[in-house]
Amino acid sequence: MLSFTCDYSEGAHSLILKRLADTNMNQEPGYGFDAYSESAREKIRAAVNIPYADVFFLVGGTQTNATVIDSVLKGYEGVLAAQTGHIAVHESGAIEFGGHKVLTLPSHEGKLDSGELEGYLEQFYADGAWEHMVIPGMVYVSFPTEYGTLYTKQELTRISEVCRRYKLPLFVDGARLGYGLASGACDLSLPELARLCDVFYIGGTKVGALCGEAVVFPGKAPAHFFTTVKQHGALLAKGRLLGVQFDTLFTDGLYMTIARNAIERAMELKRLFSGIGIPLYIDSPTNQQFPILTREQMYKLEGKVQYEVWEALPDGRAITRFATSWATTVEQIDRLREIFLEL
Amino acid sequence: MLSFTCDYSEGAHSLILKRLADTNMNQEPGYGFDAYSESAREKIRAAVNIPYADVFFLVGGTQTNATVIDSVLKGYEGVLAAQTGHIAVHESGAIEFGGHKVLTLPSHEGKLDSGELEGYLEQFYADGAWEHMVIPGMVYVSFPTEYGTLYTKQELTRISEVCRRYKLPLFVDGARLGYGLASGACDLSLPELARLCDVFYIGGTKVGALCGEAVVFPGKAPAHFFTTVKQHGALLAKGRLLGVQFDTLFTDGLYMTIARNAIERAMELKRLFSGIGIPLYIDSPTNQQFPILTREQMYKLEGKVQYEVWEALPDGRAITRFATSWATTVEQIDRLREIFLEL
Amino acid sequence: MLSFTCDYSEGAHSLILKRLADTNMNQEPGYGFDAYSESAREKIRAAVNIPYADVFFLVGGTQTNATVIDSVLKGYEGVLAAQTGHIAVHESGAIEFGGHKVLTLPSHEGKLDSGELEGYLEQFYADGAWEHMVIPGMVYVSFPTEYGTLYTKQELTRISEVCRRYKLPLFVDGARLGYGLASGACDLSLPELARLCDVFYIGGTKVGALCGEAVVFPGKAPAHFFTTVKQHGALLAKGRLLGVQFDTLFTDGLYMTIARNAIERAMELKRLFSGIGIPLYIDSPTNQQFPILTREQMYKLEGKVQYEVWEALPDGRAITRFATSWATTVEQIDRLREIFLEL
Amino acid sequence: MLSFTCDYSEGAHSLILKRLADTNMNQEPGYGFDAYSESAREKIRAAVNIPYADVFFLVGGTQTNATVIDSVLKGYEGVLAAQTGHIAVHESGAIEFGGHKVLTLPSHEGKLDSGELEGYLEQFYADGAWEHMVIPGMVYVSFPTEYGTLYTKQELTRISEVCRRYKLPLFVDGARLGYGLASGACDLSLPELARLCDVFYIGGTKVGALCGEAVVFPGKAPAHFFTTVKQHGALLAKGRLLGVQFDTLFTDGLYMTIARNAIERAMELKRLFSGIGIPLYIDSPTNQQFPILTREQMYKLEGKVQYEVWEALPDGRAITRFATSWATTVEQIDRLREIFLEL
Repeated sequence: MLSFTCDYSEGAHSLILKRLADTNMNQEPGYGFDAYSESAREKIRAAVNIPYADVFFLVGGTQTNATVIDSVLKGYEGVLAAQTGHIAVHESGAIEFGGHKVLTLPSHEGKLDSGELEGYLEQFYADGAWEHMVIPGMVYVSFPTEYGTLYTKQELTRISEVCRRYKLPLFVDGARLGYGLASGACDLSLPELARLCDVFYIGGTKVGALCGEAVVFPGKAPAHFFTTVKQHGALLAKGRLLGVQFDTLFTDGLYMTIARNAIERAMELKRLFSGIGIPLYIDSPTNQQFPILTREQMYKLEGKVQYEVWEALPDGRAITRFATSWATTVEQIDRLREIFLEL
Repeated sequence: MLSFTCDYSEGAHSLILKRLADTNMNQEPGYGFDAYSESAREKIRAAVNIPYADVFFLVGGTQTNATVIDSVLKGYEGVLAAQTGHIAVHESGAIEFGGHKVLTLPSHEGKLDSGELEGYLEQFYADGAWEHMVIPGMVYVSFPTEYGTLYTKQELTRISEVCRRYKLPLFVDGARLGYGLASGACDLSLPELARLCDVFYIGGTKVGALCGEAVVFPGKAPAHFFTTVKQHGALLAKGRLLGVQFDTLFTDGLYMTIARNAIERAMELKRLFSGIGIPLYIDSPTNQQFPILTREQMYKLEGKVQYEVWEALPDGRAITRFATSWATTVEQIDRLREIFLEL
Repeated sequence: MLSFTCDYSEGAHSLILKRLADTNMNQEPGYGFDAYSESAREKIRAAVNIPYADVFFLVGGTQTNATVIDSVLKGYEGVLAAQTGHIAVHESGAIEFGGHKVLTLPSHEGKLDSGELEGYLEQFYADGAWEHMVIPGMVYVSFPTEYGTLYTKQELTRISEVCRRYKLPLFVDGARLGYGLASGACDLSLPELARLCDVFYIGGTKVGALCGEAVVFPGKAPAHFFTTVKQHGALLAKGRLLGVQFDTLFTDGLYMTIARNAIERAMELKRLFSGIGIPLYIDSPTNQQFPILTREQMYKLEGKVQYEVWEALPDGRAITRFATSWATTVEQIDRLREIFLEL
Repeated sequence: MLSFTCDYSEGAHSLILKRLADTNMNQEPGYGFDAYSESAREKIRAAVNIPYADVFFLVGGTQTNATVIDSVLKGYEGVLAAQTGHIAVHESGAIEFGGHKVLTLPSHEGKLDSGELEGYLEQFYADGAWEHMVIPGMVYVSFPTEYGTLYTKQELTRISEVCRRYKLPLFVDGARLGYGLASGACDLSLPELARLCDVFYIGGTKVGALCGEAVVFPGKAPAHFFTTVKQHGALLAKGRLLGVQFDTLFTDGLYMTIARNAIERAMELKRLFSGIGIPLYIDSPTNQQFPILTREQMYKLEGKVQYEVWEALPDGRAITRFATSWATTVEQIDRLREIFLEL
C-alpha cells in the first residue's frame, strides 16, 4: 500500500547503507572519536561556514531537544516555545523530566512572532513578581515548523535580535532542516541560519539517515557537553553509525539533493490537490502537506493509501497530513493521482 | 593496528547489514510498530520461553538502564548495585538525573553477594531513622559484570530469593548478555535467567549490532512504559533499525553463535597470556580479559596493538583489558601471539 | 502606613503565640511525632468528619503543592490546572523541578470548567499520538482561586465526577481555604469539600499562623509520603511548631472565626469601593478584592496605603488587589475610607 | 521524663518568643524583605566580618543543603562528601531528587581527609573515562560533623586549599555551627571559617530557634538564588519569622552564649560518664556525646531518661547518643547523675 504517513517510513539512502557496509569491519574508537565522525564534523563546519563550530552527533530528535535545552539552561530557567512546538506537545514531557518548564507563546501556523516574544519578555520583567516565576532562559523554534511552515530571513533575524537583546540563546530544532532549506520559499542559507542562532541541529532521521541529528554550536558548546550527552543516555557507543551517515550526507551535497526531491514531490502533491479541488489547511512550502479531505474521500482511500489524520473538523471532514521525503518517487505521486482520479 | 580495546570497535554482523539493505525501501510505521520489531519480539519471547513477555527495543546501555530503573522505582526509592556497577560509576549520573540514588554494596569482582544484600536490607529496616533515608526499590546486577565475571545459577537464585522476600524487582543489565550465556562457565540458560529476574536486557550494541538493547519484562512492563521511553529520549523514530537487527540476531541462533566466537577467542587469549607467564588480574570466563602487563611489555606493544589500561599498579605494572567480540578472528589472536613472542 | 498588600503581613494570631510560649520548654520528639501535632491531627479529622484521614503538616504553599503533586503523579504524568493556577505561574517551576509538566486549561476568573476538563480528556485519548504526550495524572484547583473566586458545590461536584470517571486524583489547594469556607457565597462545608477530592490542604500561613499547611488525604496518603516530604526538604525538625499552631487553630473553631473576620472586612471594603464609584475587576466573595484605580487615585494613595498592582490597563488605570485577613481591623477599614474620602 | 534524645526537643529561646510577640502585629512585606530580616542580615555580615556577604534565610537543614547544592552545581556535576555526611545518608535522597550524585569519600569520625580528597581528584582526572563519570563540582563538609567532631583550622585550611586548586566551591553545613564554634576544642573563629569556604550556613533550628538556617555566601550568591529557593519550596512567605529569630540570635552575642551552655553541659556529661566508667565511642568536643551503654544500664534507664540508640554492638552493648542544647540545664545533668548513681 502507498504511504504518505510520515517522512521516516523507509530506511536510509542507499549511499549510506553502502558506506556502512564498506567501513563495517574497520576498527574505530567509540563515542564519536572515530574517523568518520571527525570527517563529518569537518564537512558540517564547512557547510555552515564556521571553521570552529562545535559539532556533536545524537540519535533522535526528542533526545536532542532535551539534551541541548538542559545543557544550556540554568536550573531556574525555562525555554520559550510556540504552543505547538514539538517540545511543548509531543515529547512526553522530556523537557520537564530534566527539570525545566516550557513557557509557551501563541503559534502562528507553528511560528513564533518576534513582536509577541519581545512583548512577553518586556511584560515578564515588568511584573513585580517575576522572581517567583520561571525565568526565560532560551528560545526554541522549529525550522520548518510542525506545520511545515518556514520563518523568512527577516522573521528569524528579528527573533534573533530580540534574543540577543535579552541574552537568550536561540535554539533551532532542525529535525527537518533539509526540507526547509530546500524549499523554494526559503530565503535563508545554512550559514545564514547558523549565524542567527546559538545552537541548532541538522536532522538526519527524517532526511535520509537511519537515525541521527547533528547538533551545531556556531560558537562554543556548553562546558562538558559530552558528559551531559552521556548523562541523558544520548551518547552512542558506536558513534561511527552516526559519523558514517553524516559524512555521507555531507559529501557532494547529498543532504540537499535528497531534500530537494522531497520538496519537488511535495509541490507535485500540492498541485495534485489543488487540481482536483481539495483545499489545503496550510499553504506549506515544505514536505508536509495538509489537505482537508471529506469523509467520502477518506473512505475511498482506505486500503489504498495511508496518511495521517491531523484533526477532525466539526463538519465531518478532516485535516490530514501527507508527507513526502527523500525516498518519495515520482511514481508514487503518479499512483496517488490515479487513486484520486478513480475516486 | 590490531585492537582489543573494546567489544564495540566494528560495525555490525554482515547478516544484519544485508538485512538492513534488503528491507530498506519497505515502508513501515515508526516507534517499534514495524513488522521487523514485531517479529523480533516474537523470536525473543520464544528464546526466553515466556509467550507473553513484554519486549521493547532501546538504543544504548546507559539509556536503557536509566529508563528501566526510572520506570520501576517510585520517587522516594533508590536502586541497589555493586560499587563497581556501571550505573554507579560510568553513566555520568544518569540515574541521579532521573532523581534516584544508587545505593552501593561491596563488589566481589563485580558481583553482589546475596548475604550482604540481605544483611543490608535487614539493617536498613532495623534502623530507627530509615524513613529519613532512600528506600531501596530495586536491585541491579550486571551479567556478565564489568569485570567479566558471572553469577552462578545458585548465586543469582539466592539474590533473586532475597529480592522476592523484600519485594524488590531484580534488574539484570545484559549489555554483554550473549558473552555471559556463551561462556563455558555459565550454568544458566536464557529462560532460567529470565525467570529469576523481573526485567533484563539482551545487549545488541556489544554483540553484533550497530546499536540496540532488547528490554524484556518476563512479567508485565510498568504502565505506560512506552511513554516513559519517549520521555527519556529513548524512543527511536525508525524502530525498524532495532527490529531488523534483533530479528536477525534471533534467527537461526545467530546471537549465540557469534557470542561463542568471542568466548573462543577470549579463551585463546587466556591461554596465550598464561603460556607466556603474564598474570591475569581476574579469572574471567567471558570476553574481557585482564592481563597485568609490565612497563616494558606495554612499551613494546606501542604502535602494534591497542587495549585499555584499567588501573595503574604501584609497582609500575598495569591491569589492562583485552576484549574480544563477535568480530574477533583467529588471525587477530595469532597476530597478537606473534607480537608477544617478538617482545 | 496602612497596608492591604497581602494576607500574610502580620505574625500569628495571639492565641497561637501564647500557646507557643506555654508549651515552649516541654521536650517533644521531632518530625511531627509530638503530642501537639497528634492532637491537631485528631481535631482536623473531626473537622473534616473523616476519622481515618491521613494528615500531615508542611511549612508553605509552594512546598506543599510540589510535594503532594510529586507524591501522587507517576513519572510520565502531568497535572492539569487552570492557566492562572498558582502552580502554573508563581512557583518558579517547582512542579517541573520535580519532573512533571503542568498541563493548562482555560481559566474562568481563576476557575476550571468541568466541561472543558472533560473535553480535554476526551480529546486527549482520542488523539492517535497521546502516548507521545504527557499523560494527565491529577487535577489541581485552588479554593478560593488566585482571583478570590469560589467553586460552587455543583461546580466542584462536576469536576470531581469527571476526575473519578477518568481516575484522576483531585487536589484542592487551600492556601486560603478558611477565607473560602467563611464566605457568604460558599455553599460547601469542609466535610463536603473533603469528600469531593482526594487530597487538599488547609492553609495556615495566610489564615492566622506564622507558617504551616495541613495536608489532608481523606482516603490514604501515597506510600511513604513521610519520606517524600523529607526528600522535598519539607519535613520540619521541630514539627511542634506546626502542631501547636494547627491545634490552636482547630480549638473552639478559631480557624473559622478568624477567617470570618477577613470576609467581613472584605465585604466592608467592597461596599466602600462601590460606595465611591470605584469599579471592581472581579466580583470576589472572599478576602481579596480587585478595585480598578485611576492614575490619580493611585497617586493620591501614595505614602498612605499599600496594596498590590495586579495589572496595568491600557487606559492608564490599574487592576489592584486589596487583601484583608484574620488581622484586619474595623479601624483599618475606617481609616482607608477616610483616606479615600479625602482624595 | 528526662530527655537527651536530640538538640531540637524544646521550642525556642525565650528572647525569641518575646521578640516574636513584640513584633507580631507590625505589617511587614513577605519573602525576606521585612525589616527584621534586613537587620539580621546586617548583624550576620558583621559577625562574619564580610560587609557584602549575601545572606538568605531558609527553614530547615535538608532543604538548605538541597537548595544550596543545586544552586551551585552544574547539571553534570556531583557533590563530594564523607560517607557519613548528612546529605549522603539522612536526607531521603534530596540531593539526587535535584539530579545530582553525592560522591562519597571515607569518613574519619565524620570528617573528610584533605589528602584523600586531593587523591580522589587527582585520580579522577587521570582516569581516561572521567568524562563518562559524574564530575565533582563542590565539596560538602559538616561542622561539627554528624559525630560531633570538629575540623581544626589546619584541617579545614588544607581542604579549602585543595578545593581552590581544583576550583571546587566548599560548602560547610553548619546545622550545629554554634556548638562547633563554642567548643573549647575549636581553633576557628566565625570570620575565619567564612573565609575558608564559599558558602555555609548558621544553624538556627538546633541552636535556639523554632526553625531557620542562615545561608551565607562570603562572596556572591549564585545568580537568581532567590528564584532557586522558591523553586525548591524553600521560600517562607512570612520571612519575618526567620528574620526576627536570627536578629535576636545575633543581638548581644546570644547565639554564642546559648551555644556555650550546650557545650558546658556536654562537658559535664562527659565527666559524668567517665567518672562512672562508661566508655565513649568518640571523644566528641561538642554537644553530642556517644556513651557505650551495657544492656543492664539501658534497661535501668528505661522510663527515666531518653536518648538515641546509635548502633547496636555485637556484644549486646550499644553506642548511644546524648545531646545537650541551648536549653539543657544544670539541673537536668544533676538529675541524670542521680539516675546513673542509683543504677
